[in-house]
Amino acid sequence: MFETAELGHTIAKTVFNRAVPKLRADLLDVQYRLKENGTFPVIVLISGVRGAGKSETVNLLNEWMDPRHILTRAFDTPSDEERDRPPMWRYWRALPPKGKIGILFGSWYTAPIIDRVFRNTGRGDLQQSIEEINRFEKMLADEGALIVKFWFHLSKKTQRRRLKALRSDPETRWRVSRRDRDFFREYDRFYSISGETLRATSTADAPWIVVEGADPPYRSLTAGRALLGAMRKRLDAPAGRGRPASKAAPVVRPIDGRDALTELDLERSLTDKAYKTGLSAWQGRLNRLARHAKFPLLSVALAFEGMDAAGKGSTIRRITAGLDARHYNVIPVAAPTDEERAQPYLWRFWRHLPRKGRVTIYDRTWYGRVLVERIEGFCSEADWMRAYAEINDFEEQLGRSATVLCKFWMQISREEQLRRFKERERMRFKRFKITPEDWRNREKWDLYQSAAVDMIERTSTPSAPWTVVEANDKKFARIKVLKTICKRIERALRTL
Amino acid sequence: MFETAELGHTIAKTVFNRAVPKLRADLLDVQYRLKENGTFPVIVLISGVRGAGKSETVNLLNEWMDPRHILTRAFDTPSDEERDRPPMWRYWRALPPKGKIGILFGSWYTAPIIDRVFRNTGRGDLQQSIEEINRFEKMLADEGALIVKFWFHLSKKTQRRRLKALRSDPETRWRVSRRDRDFFREYDRFYSISGETLRATSTADAPWIVVEGADPPYRSLTAGRALLGAMRKRLDAPAGRGRPASKAAPVVRPIDGRDALTELDLERSLTDKAYKTGLSAWQGRLNRLARHAKFPLLSVALAFEGMDAAGKGSTIRRITAGLDARHYNVIPVAAPTDEERAQPYLWRFWRHLPRKGRVTIYDRTWYGRVLVERIEGFCSEADWMRAYAEINDFEEQLGRSATVLCKFWMQISREEQLRRFKERERMRFKRFKITPEDWRNREKWDLYQSAAVDMIERTSTPSAPWTVVEANDKKFARIKVLKTICKRIERALRTL
Repeated sequence: MFETAELGHTIAKTVFNRAVPKLRADLLDVQYRLKENGTFPVIVLISGVRGAGKSETVNLLNEWMDPRHILTRAFDTPSDEERDRPPMWRYWRALPPKGKIGILFGSWYTAPIIDRVFRNTGRGDLQQSIEEINRFEKMLADEGALIVKFWFHLSKKTQRRRLKALRSDPETRWRVSRRDRDFFREYDRFYSISGETLRATSTADAPWIVVEGADPPYRSLTAGRALLGAMRKRLDAPAGRGRPASKAAPVVRPIDGRDALTELDLERSLTDKAYKTGLSAWQGRLNRLARHAKFPLLSVALAFEGMDAAGKGSTIRRITAGLDARHYNVIPVAAPTDEERAQPYLWRFWRHLPRKGRVTIYDRTWYGRVLVERIEGFCSEADWMRAYAEINDFEEQLGRSATVLCKFWMQISREEQLRRFKERERMRFKRFKITPEDWRNREKWDLYQSAAVDMIERTSTPSAPWTVVEANDKKFARIKVLKTICKRIERALRTL
Repeated sequence: MFETAELGHTIAKTVFNRAVPKLRADLLDVQYRLKENGTFPVIVLISGVRGAGKSETVNLLNEWMDPRHILTRAFDTPSDEERDRPPMWRYWRALPPKGKIGILFGSWYTAPIIDRVFRNTGRGDLQQSIEEINRFEKMLADEGALIVKFWFHLSKKTQRRRLKALRSDPETRWRVSRRDRDFFREYDRFYSISGETLRATSTADAPWIVVEGADPPYRSLTAGRALLGAMRKRLDAPAGRGRPASKAAPVVRPIDGRDALTELDLERSLTDKAYKTGLSAWQGRLNRLARHAKFPLLSVALAFEGMDAAGKGSTIRRITAGLDARHYNVIPVAAPTDEERAQPYLWRFWRHLPRKGRVTIYDRTWYGRVLVERIEGFCSEADWMRAYAEINDFEEQLGRSATVLCKFWMQISREEQLRRFKERERMRFKRFKITPEDWRNREKWDLYQSAAVDMIERTSTPSAPWTVVEANDKKFARIKVLKTICKRIERALRTL
């Protein structure tokens, strides 16, 4: 991976000085074309060995282009708000919106490589990180992002010489930190582990650009031109390219018409008495769980989906009634704001992830991608097809960061929906709940049902299973939901 | 202040139970009217003595209304991201957008009262806090917010009885914390200091509602009805009410036409040589300052305003060239996003405030309120007239939290602007910088100039002075800006 970057590339200062004015003008030009175009973000990763010119390059790119339309983010120690969420949260919050360039100094590669070099993780962990990174970057690319990954390299000899030179000058001795020495001692492991990581993550969507870092003019010109080339290529490409129609086989329906939803017994119900007893018992249990000594080590995310009028809102109110209002947030998912539209579709759910000790309740969720967006054609077939895997990745990260995720599909019959729609139209305080759109969606009942079946089958995982709730009887549904939540939290508390 | 709240108010449980269904229905109704109306937020503060039912009330309001459209925020220990900014930052980030209800459990009253009770602050500090709070709440109200402030009270006798009862039962003994005892010991001070604070902050815009907390039915019904009444009154008011036209005397111009800007010597200039030497000297000095051992204790905010083509962008690039890209952010201020439009106008500047050790550069600023918004009529005269004082308050908070704020007005002559506009039209890489709007703004040159003079006169304070920059010569302007920044940071470092 690093062979070419150890050849001792240099270019004369005069060549550099002659080339820079044109390069700057060209970079500014593509930067403004990007801004006007506004359909994709550029994500620039700056990685590599210490002393190879990473921070100089970041500064230079900001100098060459218009810094007002560049977001530069460096990742040092995570803040406490960041530590309370999955590790990727801090990168999600740093993603540039469409039309902007984001320079990430340090990235999702830093921890996996360093942890492996210093043997805090094993081979399998690194492999897993690599796979996750590939899926994450593919998602970004599929969402339209242009990803430009730079790795700045120094050969062992150059690195040794550099450290020696710094140390021998009293003016610069302070710049050689203990960390520099620790890293140099492990140079060979860094070499092989970075190499392995780079090879495995150099994909068609996001190839690595390895740059020899020893000679500043060579390094700077190389990086600048590479970025220019990548942006130009993308801006010149005919629109819509890179988003091919799905070539997947069409989804196959069981020919007897039976599926996970048709087989439900929607008539399951509870008596008023059983409901009343159950409700206070489970709400009390939930309340005690939320005051459990170890609860502050968990996050809880509750995801609600279902046909219109399936009882999501009223069920959510039965949950919040068992909780302290200081500890939960309900996120009603409506049309995205313009800040949200400028980001990958999962971004608006990431931003609301609960801190430890908190509960976030999503009233409709990221599954909109494979339900309404699929059915209404708001995204392409390829987009919603890949969403299943992207969502599984997202939820797996939640699971690993001690988030209890419960997903509920509230299922009612078509007749029951009609009854509820009519009731809503009649009743004063429910009138706001029924809109012409609800009636339009009802026309597409079968499409929604089969999309829901696909969704449940493709995204039910051991750590984030779907709970399908028979919801014709609201009482039965609410108790089932409350019970599921309590059981899941209890299991999580036991395994902490 | 608390006399009526010590009378031992109670209502029968049966009365309560009869009243609640109607109250709930009515609250839901106004909540949905608020959402549909969408023109103002409701900010509910929940304060008062310990054990008076604050958290029960928060839970109840969430239960009675639709929790999906309520944002509840409790303020415990600030996070590290919050500690790095002015104390009000955490409240700004918790403000509900228009159309929503935000319940703030704990608020900007908590610290001033507690600090004064335990003598961490003096009388003068409390007075100052009170004045600041009044100005802050007036700003919120002027921006359209409905502010409903609840104070839940318990008489000393009731409080003593409550603590005794809790302590005597082994099941509840744990609920009496050391903090409860500390607070009770200072009951009398709390009584008088809270009373004083409440009297002084019960304004026409945001009156306090004191509720006796001992009897849950009384307390809950009182709070619910008060909130309902406040929301109804506001929703029923004719639109546009509450934003009267300014009755202030018109701004008076000096009759000889001379002002702070006309008196400038715009021909001040530097030779190429002096510029070159000066630029590298001051950039170097800035760079060293940013690496000063104490720099991580400061934040730096740089604000740029000026006529179009005055050289803001190119000056900013000369500053960033002296800094490490990891440590600055440039915020180009364009049209607000829809999330920003749903908040008070200062919100979008608060959200970008730098952490300690960071520099935020605003390319156009909150002064848009008294420049473009004033001149184009995007806000009423009353709105921009009050903005001067609101901005002074904002900047004073920055000063107090160790933020070095430098404000630059870049001044060019009308002829120089014309020359630069024409140059921009000619040059390939500057063409994006000139739009029809620039030409339209140029027509209003005199209006902008006099608005700028008003702004400079009304918002130049000792801790946040304006620096007017003679900018016909770009070289002179850049050096003056760099020098000003360095000097201000140096002074701040000396006084740390």
